[in-house]
Amino acid sequence: MSIATPLQRVFDRHNLYIKRDDLYPISGGGNKGRKSHYILENCVEKKCNAVVTCGGIQSNHTRATAIRCRELGIACTIVIHSDEVQESQGNLKLLKMLNVRVVYCEMTNVARTMDFEMERFSSLGFSPFYIWGGGHCYEGTLAYFDAVKELKQQTNMKFDAVFVASGTGATQAGLHCGFKHYFPDTQVFGISVAREKHRGEEEIKKSVREFIDVNKFNSDYINDINFDDSFNCGGYENVTNELEELINKVATQTGIILDPTYTGKAWLGMEKTLKTQQLNKNTNILFWHTGGLLNLMARK
Amino acid sequence: MSIATPLQRVFDRHNLYIKRDDLYPISGGGNKGRKSHYILENCVEKKCNAVVTCGGIQSNHTRATAIRCRELGIACTIVIHSDEVQESQGNLKLLKMLNVRVVYCEMTNVARTMDFEMERFSSLGFSPFYIWGGGHCYEGTLAYFDAVKELKQQTNMKFDAVFVASGTGATQAGLHCGFKHYFPDTQVFGISVAREKHRGEEEIKKSVREFIDVNKFNSDYINDINFDDSFNCGGYENVTNELEELINKVATQTGIILDPTYTGKAWLGMEKTLKTQQLNKNTNILFWHTGGLLNLMARK
Repeated sequence: MSIATPLQRVFDRHNLYIKRDDLYPISGGGNKGRKSHYILENCVEKKCNAVVTCGGIQSNHTRATAIRCRELGIACTIVIHSDEVQESQGNLKLLKMLNVRVVYCEMTNVARTMDFEMERFSSLGFSPFYIWGGGHCYEGTLAYFDAVKELKQQTNMKFDAVFVASGTGATQAGLHCGFKHYFPDTQVFGISVAREKHRGEEEIKKSVREFIDVNKFNSDYINDINFDDSFNCGGYENVTNELEELINKVATQTGIILDPTYTGKAWLGMEKTLKTQQLNKNTNILFWHTGGLLNLMARK
Repeated sequence: MSIATPLQRVFDRHNLYIKRDDLYPISGGGNKGRKSHYILENCVEKKCNAVVTCGGIQSNHTRATAIRCRELGIACTIVIHSDEVQESQGNLKLLKMLNVRVVYCEMTNVARTMDFEMERFSSLGFSPFYIWGGGHCYEGTLAYFDAVKELKQQTNMKFDAVFVASGTGATQAGLHCGFKHYFPDTQVFGISVAREKHRGEEEIKKSVREFIDVNKFNSDYINDINFDDSFNCGGYENVTNELEELINKVATQTGIILDPTYTGKAWLGMEKTLKTQQLNKNTNILFWHTGGLLNLMARK
């Protein structure tokens, strides 16, 4: 799909821009839709006709993967690490409508269950394709490297800082490499939605290093990875009052809908980081909105 | 926004295409997003700085209007004709986050309440702008006339029939005029989601006549309005088992997410209409997907 997501200026805050990947064209939107496009293309190129992947019960990655599989006529098994019984809301609701095979297991059993599901497909005569949780892979990084190219085609603006929600790390890794390449003066701030700093940074470094190697980019690209775990509100899917109030405030002031699992935390990190920095009036800030509408909808 | 929604071919049904206005770039997507763009532009041109409109409790029109108002810094009052107390799900959830003024009243009291809210804005020093329920107005029709122009720029394909969910009528009126103008051999089938045939058709005729007059189009455009009330499943927001099964089947077979209030009924009408007609293998069908993801999410 050659359709670019909107780049929007925020009313009354003349130097704040939003890259609207929440409006990426897939049901439910978001960064996992962009990645799934690249990942499933790789699956088709490799002549595979079945997919095994995993995620949490409100995973955007599994929803996006299941949609793409149905669009392409590819069989699909989703391994969900949860024993929590949840009403079918948000992403889970779509997953059920899409009627892909869903297998529940404990977190410690994910790898084994996925291996089993791969073998199951093989024994049924399929050529199965394995996708890591979150779509964490080279194609995921590439999708976000190319997303910066898309941005470059939309604007000549110089952004001083970019803020993005950072989970498994491939989105930030791709943006990091993309900005190093297309906008070398821009700093990317990844705001952790779950992981603590050390682990998060290591994962991003791995992805960046892989990307540099494959594309023979300058090894300097590995520098300046910025992964901040100060705004994760106590961990994945944890929500604080401050976060909820912020999300309502942003909707009221700008019309931008954030979510409590990912983008709300990234915006919180952006506001607090900008407050502590001495920025002049001409500083241009980009908030890279990665979606989360269905996480918002799944929440009571 | 100059971004076109995707035109997608459905896997394994080589002559069925979908115009993905469910992915129109606004939170929650859909045809009311496309209309609100034109309507609020008109509001700004007229130098108004406040909006009064109305809708049901899960109205996509009020949600889209509220978002645009917040993006533009325009004050906004939504009159909701419902005394039903509903959990804040779907469109209502976004409306509350956007924190626009919401006034509940009985259906018989809508006009009076809207007039009162217009006066209230005037007395506060605003220049208020009145938008009929559903965004039913000239600009709404124009948005869908232009949407056919957008389609024409995307493809040279000849579509034999177009199916679309039809509620208050401006979407169908706009498509009707657009196809008469850009694809004169294409027949537009409006599938009623609520109204009975006579009333629905009269409303569409009124909008088409207004559009012909303003644009000096051929008066023949008034012919062939096709509004079918056979698939409304008993009325607005009514759902049957057949409809629910169909929505799940379509998701499973194609990856396309329909909703039970609007687009599910339109697809039902399409399938049943196509079955009763003798179509040859080369007949190209277009399903114009008008959205409804948040209506789906609001449903238990």
